[in-house]
Amino acid sequence: MTRLPEKGVTDVRELHALLDRSYVAHVGVVRDGHPLVVPTGMARDGDRLLVHGSTGSGWMRLLADGADACVTVTSLEGIVVARSAFESSFHYRSAVVFGQFTVLDGDAKRAALDVLVEHLVPGRLAEVRASTNRELAATLVLALPLDTWSLRVSDKWPEDEPDDVSGDAWAGVVPMRPVFGEPLPAPDLRAGIPVPPSVRAL
Amino acid sequence: MTRLPEKGVTDVRELHALLDRSYVAHVGVVRDGHPLVVPTGMARDGDRLLVHGSTGSGWMRLLADGADACVTVTSLEGIVVARSAFESSFHYRSAVVFGQFTVLDGDAKRAALDVLVEHLVPGRLAEVRASTNRELAATLVLALPLDTWSLRVSDKWPEDEPDDVSGDAWAGVVPMRPVFGEPLPAPDLRAGIPVPPSVRAL
Repeated sequence: MTRLPEKGVTDVRELHALLDRSYVAHVGVVRDGHPLVVPTGMARDGDRLLVHGSTGSGWMRLLADGADACVTVTSLEGIVVARSAFESSFHYRSAVVFGQFTVLDGDAKRAALDVLVEHLVPGRLAEVRASTNRELAATLVLALPLDTWSLRVSDKWPEDEPDDVSGDAWAGVVPMRPVFGEPLPAPDLRAGIPVPPSVRAL
Repeated sequence: MTRLPEKGVTDVRELHALLDRSYVAHVGVVRDGHPLVVPTGMARDGDRLLVHGSTGSGWMRLLADGADACVTVTSLEGIVVARSAFESSFHYRSAVVFGQFTVLDGDAKRAALDVLVEHLVPGRLAEVRASTNRELAATLVLALPLDTWSLRVSDKWPEDEPDDVSGDAWAGVVPMRPVFGEPLPAPDLRAGIPVPPSVRAL
């Protein structure tokens, strides 16, 4: 996407807006000298990014040990259909955050998990039991400060050459967005338990 | 996403199916000893993955020089709403491909760009002019063999503990999928040019 009529954006509110409507980050780390990119759930908490996973996860342990990380969050928002193949591209927003994660423990860990749950399904926290100490012990929660970041936005119309604009080819943008389908109850859901407000609101 | 009831999948047809319905890959490379993760458009061409970009792109030049790459393609397909926060997670598919890219030139480069265009908007190739030599010269096209890869699929129902299943909390899955909106004509589109078949078919 490097050839697009994209722009760098420095407004932190735009960074926050992208992170707040995203579910997945791609986390890059160097493992044994080689790059590794892993998708993971994420949430923003003020001026930091939270991720969590199993204490048994090798790449998370690397992060917990302070390895340099590159966290990229991308939202694909449309296809730019230009009059030429060359100018065709995507509408997208992509944030790249560099830094080192720190491990959260105790109350900070519990609070961060609450933020992650509420980001996934707002309102869900009030509908489920608290996590047990055993569950907390099996979970690694990491925070990355939103200090060193860049944000790229591609949201322009096709930029065709004059010769192409005067031709017969169509040009425009086809928007893309993610949508939720109807909630599907689990096969072992007990009879009479309705879809809760948090899930209905998705 | 490391804690999910996910499974590793070794059927190459499943890898191909994921790549064929994906538009964006997150490419990881080590730059000056630090990880860098960049989103980019991609397409599968047989048993290799194609990406392209500007000859002026630093991270693509690293890849062109044979740097080790990790390419991750993720499809987010739903939210697993479990009865506990701990078991809540995502439905997703994620492919990770390791290797080194090679630079395509000449006829191979032109053919690869055709594959990329047809992947983006099937049928579009027949509707646009051929790329010029100047456009080709400004474009770097790289191929990565699909030799060393892994595929993880999380597509199960919530796996709550018996005590939670017998409780009052709802559980299920909320599917997610990307949808296209109505094509938006460019402001400089000449009058009387209809939306072409390729775009209508998206």
